[in-house]
Amino acid sequence: MSQKVVREVTRSACEQADRDDPLASFREEFELPDGVIYLDGNSLGVLPRVAVERSRMVVEQEWGTDLISSWNKNHWFDLPARIGGKLATLLGGGDGECVASDTTSVNLFKVLSAALRMQRQDAPERTVIVSERENFPTDLYIASGLIEALGQGHELRLIDSPEELDDALGTDVAVVLLTQVNYRTGTLWDMRGVTERIHDIGALVVWDLCHSAGAVPIGLEDASADFAVGCTYKYLNGGPGSPAFLWIAARHLDRAVSPLTAWWGHADPFHMSSDYVPAQGARRFLTGTQPILSLATMEVGIDLALRVDQEALRQKSLALTSLFIRLVEERLPGHPLTLLTPRDEERRGSHVSFRHPEGYAVMKALIAEGVIGDYREPEVMRFGLTPLYLGYADVWDAVETLRRILDDEIWKDPKFQERDVVT
Amino acid sequence: MSQKVVREVTRSACEQADRDDPLASFREEFELPDGVIYLDGNSLGVLPRVAVERSRMVVEQEWGTDLISSWNKNHWFDLPARIGGKLATLLGGGDGECVASDTTSVNLFKVLSAALRMQRQDAPERTVIVSERENFPTDLYIASGLIEALGQGHELRLIDSPEELDDALGTDVAVVLLTQVNYRTGTLWDMRGVTERIHDIGALVVWDLCHSAGAVPIGLEDASADFAVGCTYKYLNGGPGSPAFLWIAARHLDRAVSPLTAWWGHADPFHMSSDYVPAQGARRFLTGTQPILSLATMEVGIDLALRVDQEALRQKSLALTSLFIRLVEERLPGHPLTLLTPRDEERRGSHVSFRHPEGYAVMKALIAEGVIGDYREPEVMRFGLTPLYLGYADVWDAVETLRRILDDEIWKDPKFQERDVVT
Repeated sequence: MSQKVVREVTRSACEQADRDDPLASFREEFELPDGVIYLDGNSLGVLPRVAVERSRMVVEQEWGTDLISSWNKNHWFDLPARIGGKLATLLGGGDGECVASDTTSVNLFKVLSAALRMQRQDAPERTVIVSERENFPTDLYIASGLIEALGQGHELRLIDSPEELDDALGTDVAVVLLTQVNYRTGTLWDMRGVTERIHDIGALVVWDLCHSAGAVPIGLEDASADFAVGCTYKYLNGGPGSPAFLWIAARHLDRAVSPLTAWWGHADPFHMSSDYVPAQGARRFLTGTQPILSLATMEVGIDLALRVDQEALRQKSLALTSLFIRLVEERLPGHPLTLLTPRDEERRGSHVSFRHPEGYAVMKALIAEGVIGDYREPEVMRFGLTPLYLGYADVWDAVETLRRILDDEIWKDPKFQERDVVT
Repeated sequence: MSQKVVREVTRSACEQADRDDPLASFREEFELPDGVIYLDGNSLGVLPRVAVERSRMVVEQEWGTDLISSWNKNHWFDLPARIGGKLATLLGGGDGECVASDTTSVNLFKVLSAALRMQRQDAPERTVIVSERENFPTDLYIASGLIEALGQGHELRLIDSPEELDDALGTDVAVVLLTQVNYRTGTLWDMRGVTERIHDIGALVVWDLCHSAGAVPIGLEDASADFAVGCTYKYLNGGPGSPAFLWIAARHLDRAVSPLTAWWGHADPFHMSSDYVPAQGARRFLTGTQPILSLATMEVGIDLALRVDQEALRQKSLALTSLFIRLVEERLPGHPLTLLTPRDEERRGSHVSFRHPEGYAVMKALIAEGVIGDYREPEVMRFGLTPLYLGYADVWDAVETLRRILDDEIWKDPKFQERDVVT
């Protein structure tokens, strides 16, 4: 936003910022429900208009009519590598380094296992996986489950804040597993600087990009990252539960071995040999037949992301999150709201979190008013500010709704206290 | 078919058998392309008509409009267990024993790992996994990859024919991994009898049901099976790459541990605890967010399968495969066709395979004529005879087309020699 807006924020200044927004036209590419301000693109991205037709085509034409011939005719078998190639471009990786498949959890298991195996060969004394206690839980579960399954004396060392990382980086560390943007606080790691510190002590790094892919510019090769995983259903608008991805630096591809050796990762899958020979590149990390309806539809979201200037995206993302923080703090004084997201823009992803003692009920009241964010334990309200389909006036209106809910104590209605299964 | 038809097979007798077919009405439930006889439902099942609307709904309404609220409102989070419950009913299992998720390869890795772990606790001297060299390759790759990842001295022992099983069942065997219907030959194992023999020597069994689920009646609990996996995109018509399933006998559920401990398998996934606590039942084997478009659409195929009388299905399946074998042998004498599928009905699944020295070209010529089967190395033509949407006259016409291609040497056209990527 312009300096003028920064001096005095008004709704009309927000409207002007929307008119000046170089990314404004992307909003038309998405189906957005009427009467809703959707601040949950960090959990489930919205529906690209083109995905409706793509989905219809893959069901009615490719499955219904072309049937089995689609594996060749409609290139189904190449989808994981083709979409992986597009993701590599988006994430600053190279050819053959990325495939789209499975879930983030499964992919994390594969690359973490591969990284531990490389270290066992090179430096068997390295037995520690370092991660954050505040990492998304599944990352920790996967690391623990892998350690237990292997039974080789590995250990998970958890840090309680980013500042503790250097102390945790001993010569016993094999792998560091970090999520680039924290799912709860929105805190962004400096991928390049941190990767360098990890490499300095001889460890490998696995980056989880679930909350950063499509939200911040990512230069995997530029940062000399080793491995990465992530999902495509948040900022990449791939659709609910669309397949995840994994990325492996070219320098590791020949050595990296997946524990899940399966036929889609075979060098010659249709030769039907009883011996496993890994394919070239990240394809060797594929498992079995992928969910084609989800995979094909998701490509629309990736294609859309590839058309976006990543620097412009980042600038708008920061402008939106900064505006949101400022408006909440200026216009909602006296409420017990605690900002969990860094004020420092260099350390911020694309969502903002505030803690409130009644965060669950407040969020439920917000959703009832058409402002859709989400809630994470404990007491955390998350607001995803997705630059492709949100504007500055949306942020203004969302904060005004929040102000009304807090000022008028609308959240005290008992119906907003009742817990849903999925929060 | 009636005795009369068995004495003298004619096309009109086949037409009469179609009119008498108690399952005939199911054909109307599917979209079948014009001018095609589809004999590849053992590879990719056809599109149920209702799936078109279900897919449209999940994309446009549930994703596009309901967005994140769909996790509660449209019960997305429960889909794997809900569909798993339906699959358990179909396969003769019980409540909480089955979930739909991931791919068959990934699920096999999970249950095979769990079985080995149970044996390591109970009988650490048991270090052998027995399987068939002719098993679907990914099953062998997964077993080998798991053995290598664990590094605990396990061994894969492969038998070359079903008759060798008893000799392979030594006291060193931990787990036997068998595919109930062989993907190439269509040979059916006697699940109940074989499971008993395996249990007699103290081993556990993992059944791969990819080529039997939806094709033959399966009584998992009746057979006292331990673990099972399978796919849903063949005879269950779940759509291309629709998620797979895994099944665990109730008696093992409390002890069975997945190496892929992930948040969807957590007892309280939204508590976001850093400690993993497994959910009750087979849910603990879930990993991350599943591909909802594929998963929701696939439920249509499962619902359809649940409406079919399994004994009537089996009778028609055997009538179709027996007719196919008989017609090929009676009407195509003098051609170098070798039947790979058992003549004994009790040992036959729902597809028939013939070997022919030019099997690849013959199959390609058949496909060009609208009779769609598939090819598997080496030299094997597979014909899937799916009782829900194929009739007796279809079998007649398919064999007549094959006769013409062989008698007139149509397959010699160079265009039928050219190999596709996916065979």
